Amino acid sequence: MDYGLLFGGQSFEHEISIVSAIALKEVLGASIKAFIFLDGAHKFYLIEPKDMRAPFFSRGQYKKCPEITLKMHGFYTQGLLGSKKVAFNTLINLIHGADGEDGKLASLLDFFSVKFIGPRVEASVLSFNKHFTKMLAKEKGINTLPYVFLNNHNEHNLKSMDYPLIVKPNRLGSSLGIGVIKEEREVAFLLDEVFEFDSEVLIEPFKEGVKEYNLAGCKIQEKGESVFVFSTIEEPQKKAFLSFEEKYLDFGRTAKVARAELSPVLEEKMHAVFQALYDPLFVGAIIRCDFFVIGNEVYLNEINPIPGSLAHYLFEDFAHILERVQLPKPTPIPITYNYINRIQKAK
Amino acid sequence: MDYGLLFGGQSFEHEISIVSAIALKEVLGASIKAFIFLDGAHKFYLIEPKDMRAPFFSRGQYKKCPEITLKMHGFYTQGLLGSKKVAFNTLINLIHGADGEDGKLASLLDFFSVKFIGPRVEASVLSFNKHFTKMLAKEKGINTLPYVFLNNHNEHNLKSMDYPLIVKPNRLGSSLGIGVIKEEREVAFLLDEVFEFDSEVLIEPFKEGVKEYNLAGCKIQEKGESVFVFSTIEEPQKKAFLSFEEKYLDFGRTAKVARAELSPVLEEKMHAVFQALYDPLFVGAIIRCDFFVIGNEVYLNEINPIPGSLAHYLFEDFAHILERVQLPKPTPIPITYNYINRIQKAK
Repeated sequence: MDYGLLFGGQSFEHEISIVSAIALKEVLGASIKAFIFLDGAHKFYLIEPKDMRAPFFSRGQYKKCPEITLKMHGFYTQGLLGSKKVAFNTLINLIHGADGEDGKLASLLDFFSVKFIGPRVEASVLSFNKHFTKMLAKEKGINTLPYVFLNNHNEHNLKSMDYPLIVKPNRLGSSLGIGVIKEEREVAFLLDEVFEFDSEVLIEPFKEGVKEYNLAGCKIQEKGESVFVFSTIEEPQKKAFLSFEEKYLDFGRTAKVARAELSPVLEEKMHAVFQALYDPLFVGAIIRCDFFVIGNEVYLNEINPIPGSLAHYLFEDFAHILERVQLPKPTPIPITYNYINRIQKAK
Repeated sequence: MDYGLLFGGQSFEHEISIVSAIALKEVLGASIKAFIFLDGAHKFYLIEPKDMRAPFFSRGQYKKCPEITLKMHGFYTQGLLGSKKVAFNTLINLIHGADGEDGKLASLLDFFSVKFIGPRVEASVLSFNKHFTKMLAKEKGINTLPYVFLNNHNEHNLKSMDYPLIVKPNRLGSSLGIGVIKEEREVAFLLDEVFEFDSEVLIEPFKEGVKEYNLAGCKIQEKGESVFVFSTIEEPQKKAFLSFEEKYLDFGRTAKVARAELSPVLEEKMHAVFQALYDPLFVGAIIRCDFFVIGNEVYLNEINPIPGSLAHYLFEDFAHILERVQLPKPTPIPITYNYINRIQKAK
């Protein structure tokens, strides 16, 4: 398979996406035919494989690379001899956070009929916005922790909640802006901090020492059948929670992980929750669901629709799966002008 | 105010959007500086005001108009002397259905920093998908009719529902594909029909003769304050339900409507529900909420994030309101390369 790899983005996770792309280059090697970088000004650049090093971007050297334009069916370079299409078969959307996971790039790629692996616009919006993820989980009968949602800095009624609490910007990934409120007198200060990142905030009980598990997966087409594939379930490295810098380093992971010690019943439950969430909303994407286990029950923490370097390290045969990711079929919409013609005739 | 008017789209409601744009031209006159048509192949064309007639599009004459390209900050013509920006201050998104209301154009316009009136990507996804609208209403404690959601043609358990039922494609507007199931033996046939339009279907009780009301509104900036404005509440013309052709004609309306006879209490309830839904999700758009009234309670039927010709006929002073629509402020996202720089230094 010939991939294009899209990374960067106007996002708090811009740098994470660069590291994630460099890690994926290690894994997929020559099957990536085009590296497409989206900078903070929403310009696309075509990057040479040899230049896929973090300082090349942080020093702004990428600006000397050819700028490319997204048009129908792909990205195009513009030269003296006209426009040339950047060669790849399927694009991998590896832009974490805003742009990549909020539905914007999904929309652009769908609008311009570019074949891509990644969440579509509905899946993006429902997973990027943590409040919407809660609504989706409720609708599907999936456990989540109780929460308070705030979209106004000045009003907060946390009476129903017991401390400690965890506060999260509603629409940011990679643990950005997350804080723990240990007692009531810290509320105002921590809310000030988190409202710096987003005008919406989600507050949940903070369960210290809770068991956490990550499961990635997708639907693939294999021998003409549509089947689910699941990754190894990982028990992520535990701390109170990962800081941004730790997460950042985490996105560059290339080593495989150890399987979590987990009862078959719990594993089965996680698979069932994953399937209920994934199908059909996330078809086309390799996603990672992060779960808590409390009293032998599985709780959805969050859905990562574009996990760091696609969580390749969780899969036995990542390249094989990536090649076979089932992509949603676009519905053809005929434009017939039947109504206008009929009404014109009747005039 | 100098508006651009965007209409057409790759949508079952393509023709409706043309009619809607022609009606809005009647209302706004010379304040529309640019008519931008999106055809079924996702090409944008700049249309002369004199050519804003339905047959100009149905006969394909628009193809002789200049093709324009969406780039940073606007649409551009490409001539021998270089690229020229199409002049307007604020774009009105008047593309009904797919492209316009599903989040795709919202994403494109946001990505390319074009100032526009219309729903943003989250608002689009939550209103275009009727199932997500139900989830949103439930979360906000707003009444809706009970429903069964199907995303598989072969499985349908309607045991919990009493006939007659109304079946709707989950992601289409303008009454397209809607049917009424009077008794059980009609289920298979009507589901066949509706699944032609969408892979997801919503089924609700069909309440013949139920009272229906439409209320449009938005948030505007007036004298430095952010305030809600509400339209006249209309009791739409009643039939079993409007066919596509009737709706089509309805989108071309230019006459003002009569105020519905409604108790102040119910009107107040509708305003409260509207505000709860609108703020902050729909900020930037003029939307119309369609309500049922059953036993003195208000039920949300659906949210139209881009109503036909912006429901101008429901407002006393439409031009005044349109000029003042409050637009969401984009959050600046600094790209600092702090993390890459720190890690490079540490190496």
